[in-house]
Amino acid sequence: MSGRREDGARAALVDADKGRVWPIEPPAWAPKHFGMADVIRGWRDLRDSLRADGDGIPLSQVELLAPIPHPRRNLMCVGKNYFDHAHEFTRSGFDSSASSAKDAIPEHPIIFTKVPETVIGPGAAIRYPHGVSDQIDYEVELVVVIGRAGRDIPKAQAMDHVFGYTIANDVTARDIQARHKQWFLGKSLDTFCPLGPWIVTADEVDLSDTSVRTWVNGELRQNSNTRELIFDVPTLIETMSRGITLQPGDLILTGTPAGVGLGFTPPKFLKPGDRVKLEIGGIGVLENTLEG
Amino acid sequence: MSGRREDGARAALVDADKGRVWPIEPPAWAPKHFGMADVIRGWRDLRDSLRADGDGIPLSQVELLAPIPHPRRNLMCVGKNYFDHAHEFTRSGFDSSASSAKDAIPEHPIIFTKVPETVIGPGAAIRYPHGVSDQIDYEVELVVVIGRAGRDIPKAQAMDHVFGYTIANDVTARDIQARHKQWFLGKSLDTFCPLGPWIVTADEVDLSDTSVRTWVNGELRQNSNTRELIFDVPTLIETMSRGITLQPGDLILTGTPAGVGLGFTPPKFLKPGDRVKLEIGGIGVLENTLEG
Repeated sequence: MSGRREDGARAALVDADKGRVWPIEPPAWAPKHFGMADVIRGWRDLRDSLRADGDGIPLSQVELLAPIPHPRRNLMCVGKNYFDHAHEFTRSGFDSSASSAKDAIPEHPIIFTKVPETVIGPGAAIRYPHGVSDQIDYEVELVVVIGRAGRDIPKAQAMDHVFGYTIANDVTARDIQARHKQWFLGKSLDTFCPLGPWIVTADEVDLSDTSVRTWVNGELRQNSNTRELIFDVPTLIETMSRGITLQPGDLILTGTPAGVGLGFTPPKFLKPGDRVKLEIGGIGVLENTLEG
Repeated sequence: MSGRREDGARAALVDADKGRVWPIEPPAWAPKHFGMADVIRGWRDLRDSLRADGDGIPLSQVELLAPIPHPRRNLMCVGKNYFDHAHEFTRSGFDSSASSAKDAIPEHPIIFTKVPETVIGPGAAIRYPHGVSDQIDYEVELVVVIGRAGRDIPKAQAMDHVFGYTIANDVTARDIQARHKQWFLGKSLDTFCPLGPWIVTADEVDLSDTSVRTWVNGELRQNSNTRELIFDVPTLIETMSRGITLQPGDLILTGTPAGVGLGFTPPKFLKPGDRVKLEIGGIGVLENTLEG
């Protein structure tokens, strides 16, 4: 995780069950601002020295930041990667990637990006873009955090490149997404990527059975499981690394299941003041509110 | 420009006519690695102190790097932004943004991205992705370098946010671009964005009449003018800044005219060893070779 107390931002170990946090001491090679991205890059040297020694700090006294607050390049996102959402999205008429209902299920992963400056932490306000869009939608997504660099990674070795997982809300302006054909603009508005609450290492999550859920103002909207992914994580890594070097700290948002706002008739887009709560089994909860 | 001699990489002033270069002295506030991106961020304080005093260094003794070798986020690119290329691309069958020839001309700018690690400098080798794609294409593009941050920038103020211009080759794997619907993957292969040779400040280029040309192994392939842009630079900045804060050092590739490899029958894709030379009037020449 990344967190902040009075003494500034720090990478830390967290034990969510015990509600305690242990700041990570920067090693000798650490740069001036030693963050979670550096922990990932130095993981092989660091992991054996990391210990939750002593009482640590109460989690309640820490302000959680996004685990990687300033990614070094755009977040990479997978479109239409759950069967039920692929049908829902194409049916809605907002899907510029498909010309008819028979194109709903992609034959190959659809990848687009969000700018790093969309990232905000748990509890931070999502900016409502008054005058720019009033079709703001939520998307709960499992995020893969890349640990080890690689290009042309075969599926069988893909998991060696995964550091861990976190949760993102791939907030989207649906009208902008549709109007511009390529989805980048509608996905990249300021604050449109709540990320967190922390990173769980890869060994702690079983992607063959992990729940993925969203509540808006307490109403359950998305309720699925990572077993419903069209393209699994090894397939995504193999595809995305073909000719392209993946980097430590890269974030891959793996797509969202059905139940987003545009799937309802009429659509249930987000309004100022709405609370969006995401939960992925084995990772945690990420909650953010749209500012008024 | 950015350049390198034996003493490491430096930002510099260049006088192309005289063939001389003057390294920029880092100001007191400069970070450890003071580069062109810092010059842009500090331009208001720096500009009056920059002088081409003395003889400088011969340009021929300097290795030119990309003017911004490590952009802080993905490069933003405009698709189908010249009339003739929009028709050529949609006709080719590679255009996943249009379902028929009548969709060729976009009603709104189409924006996608390339990862920062695609950037290479003048003369650097473009990696040929053997086994990944054999449909490699060139695209000469005028690049807008953003100087001043801003969100919701109206067209009338857009040019206040432009620092200057440079040239990019938006190298593309056409099969990957088409197969994945969203264009990001086919545009982001390692080394797929030659950039340079330097940045020319905005006042030195007249976008109402600037030639844009490409030669492959000496054969003229693209030959157009920025006056043929469908969406001009102020329109692009207004559109892309709606809800999204543009940052100093952001790079906007403004699209390519007709004459790319896929426009020929049969297509003239690039082969290992091919030399691609781009020229934009008032900026200069950018030449790169595909490695064997």
